[in-house]
Amino acid sequence: RTLRIGLIPGDGIGKEVIPAGRRILEALPASLKLKFEFVDLKAGFETFEQTGAALPDKTVEILKGECDGALFGAVSSPSKAVKGYSSPIVALRKRLDLYANVRPVKSVGGARNPIDMVIVRENTEDLYVKEEKTYDAPDGSGKIAEAVKRISEKASFRIATMAGEIALRRQKIRDSGASSIHSSPLVTITHKSNVLSQTDGLFRTTAREALGNSRFSSVGVEEQIVDSMVYKLFRQPETYDVIVAPNLYGDILSDGAAALVGSLGLVPSANVGETFAIGEPCHGSAPDIMGQDIANPIATLRSAALMLEFLKEEKAAALIYAAVDGNLEAGKLLSPDLGGTASTTAVVEDILRRL
Amino acid sequence: RTLRIGLIPGDGIGKEVIPAGRRILEALPASLKLKFEFVDLKAGFETFEQTGAALPDKTVEILKGECDGALFGAVSSPSKAVKGYSSPIVALRKRLDLYANVRPVKSVGGARNPIDMVIVRENTEDLYVKEEKTYDAPDGSGKIAEAVKRISEKASFRIATMAGEIALRRQKIRDSGASSIHSSPLVTITHKSNVLSQTDGLFRTTAREALGNSRFSSVGVEEQIVDSMVYKLFRQPETYDVIVAPNLYGDILSDGAAALVGSLGLVPSANVGETFAIGEPCHGSAPDIMGQDIANPIATLRSAALMLEFLKEEKAAALIYAAVDGNLEAGKLLSPDLGGTASTTAVVEDILRRL
Ligand SMILES: CC(C)[C@H](C(=O)O)[C@@H](O)C(=O)O
Ligand SMILES: CC(C)[C@H](C(=O)O)[C@@H](O)C(=O)O
Repeated sequence: RTLRIGLIPGDGIGKEVIPAGRRILEALPASLKLKFEFVDLKAGFETFEQTGAALPDKTVEILKGECDGALFGAVSSPSKAVKGYSSPIVALRKRLDLYANVRPVKSVGGARNPIDMVIVRENTEDLYVKEEKTYDAPDGSGKIAEAVKRISEKASFRIATMAGEIALRRQKIRDSGASSIHSSPLVTITHKSNVLSQTDGLFRTTAREALGNSRFSSVGVEEQIVDSMVYKLFRQPETYDVIVAPNLYGDILSDGAAALVGSLGLVPSANVGETFAIGEPCHGSAPDIMGQDIANPIATLRSAALMLEFLKEEKAAALIYAAVDGNLEAGKLLSPDLGGTASTTAVVEDILRRL
Repeated sequence: RTLRIGLIPGDGIGKEVIPAGRRILEALPASLKLKFEFVDLKAGFETFEQTGAALPDKTVEILKGECDGALFGAVSSPSKAVKGYSSPIVALRKRLDLYANVRPVKSVGGARNPIDMVIVRENTEDLYVKEEKTYDAPDGSGKIAEAVKRISEKASFRIATMAGEIALRRQKIRDSGASSIHSSPLVTITHKSNVLSQTDGLFRTTAREALGNSRFSSVGVEEQIVDSMVYKLFRQPETYDVIVAPNLYGDILSDGAAALVGSLGLVPSANVGETFAIGEPCHGSAPDIMGQDIANPIATLRSAALMLEFLKEEKAAALIYAAVDGNLEAGKLLSPDLGGTASTTAVVEDILRRL
């Protein structure tokens, strides 16, 4: 099988980590009978400055028409509002209907506080519909701006179903002998329905309904209000298996969970639709360290693996995860965010050797 | 001076901690020449079940007409949506125009990771305007619900100004010799303007403008995107002095910060308007531990002190803070949430002895 993968480095360290993602895919053993073709694609703030579009239509067309999956690096947010600019990754998620953002956060080896969770974030709606307007306050007290938070039964149902499927899949891997801190599957629904009774209320009841399907009868289901969820995430992170959340809470929770494993540079994500997946490291474009060959490539390598999982190439994914874990457990070639001194290149090469 | 204080225990452990708040106010030394009168007031889920109103008009009238301040306990959120019920504390904040929610989070004594920050949360708008609607999706795919996120220049300006004032006040206390991990004042503006360019963009630019006033020339100002803020809150909490945020982010960040000091049972808040303040512990009604005399009263005792601060009784406030710190530093009579075995009553009595 040949997979055609779009490469969208974007800005900043995106340009250093996406080539690493390509390298690991190319280095997978021939015995897997998996070939890759790569297409370089443009998006990001630099692209916006050059072409006037942060996400050129051509990028979307090629992804839709020719590719099986993609790797996305990171984009810079301008430090002031720039007319006409808006985040290309948010647009891409919507235009390809990549309705789930899946973010596994896992500690490695003998961590003092072992963690093994996946945040399943709705990826197309909530405040990310970006329907905003600004007007003058009738009493002359200045401007007022409003944004729409939209929650649909359809999107809530499918994201909760995806969370349930992931919980089952994780249990299957445990049943086949993989060691884990969890013994049974659990989905935690996060919301703020004590304030937002209609929107988050709809998310909550729809998620309950989706997870009430007999298919998920072995999956435990519980709820946490988002503020309390952040509290518990830090007080008892070992409790959580799969967390499902509307878009914005998912965004916040996944950065919080990343803090627990020591660095955003470790945490991968996949933007997943019916038939397409984009791997994307959770970190940003980090302009402060770009061009120095010190960015941690692991989030991207794991994102490449996660993309492969959703393209049903679980074996290839498992090899990448194991090679990364090997590097982290050895603890000898670590990038500066983990307290080491190894360059991006040195970390990648160590991991390639372990493949 | 005589202060008339409304006591609103609400539900669950609210009924155990609010009496503790009353006791500490009554126990303040006579030399302060401060007298208190108390008015018992109703609000909460139980009140809703009895009277049909979670926040009776009478409670609001008495607070407005007769009281100088109040202590609010906690309210239970029903586990399912209940027609006609909505959170009385959210309503109270709006009806009394208590536009700031101030939440100091501070570690005590020789903590391994010392923390000393205040979260200044806008308290009247954002998604808390609770303007929601539900309709059927035109394509027949189920229901869709929408909520309004509203950000005004006026509210953003005054909350940022309050944050600046608090930063100055904290610096003044440091200048007068109080030990602290900070040497200069810093306000961190939290937002998500990379996605919400109009609403959070307005918050960001207005906060910058307010803090640009020459009055605040000694105050450092920086920004963090909310997801990154949660990450940094856990990775380098010692960095933060004053954090200012729109309502919902402030809600989430303050629970996150509470996790850093070990328990929500330690963290106070004050809902502050031009001339009125309501002290309110950050924790909830905790129905699982109610009636057992094991709730931590410290969040409420500190909330009583914080209320006094905003009613310009700084001396009385300082005495309460010191007595609480004394109890925590001694570490002998701690409630179960802190790993101790002391009852609510025993903790209160230890703190009263230290007054
Ligand atoms: C860059 C930003 C628009 C994005 C988001 O909010 O989704 C990022 O934080 C992420 O988590 O991928
Ligand atoms: C109970 C709830 C409505 C409230 C809020 O969201 O403000 C609580 O979480 C708080 O922080 O005081």
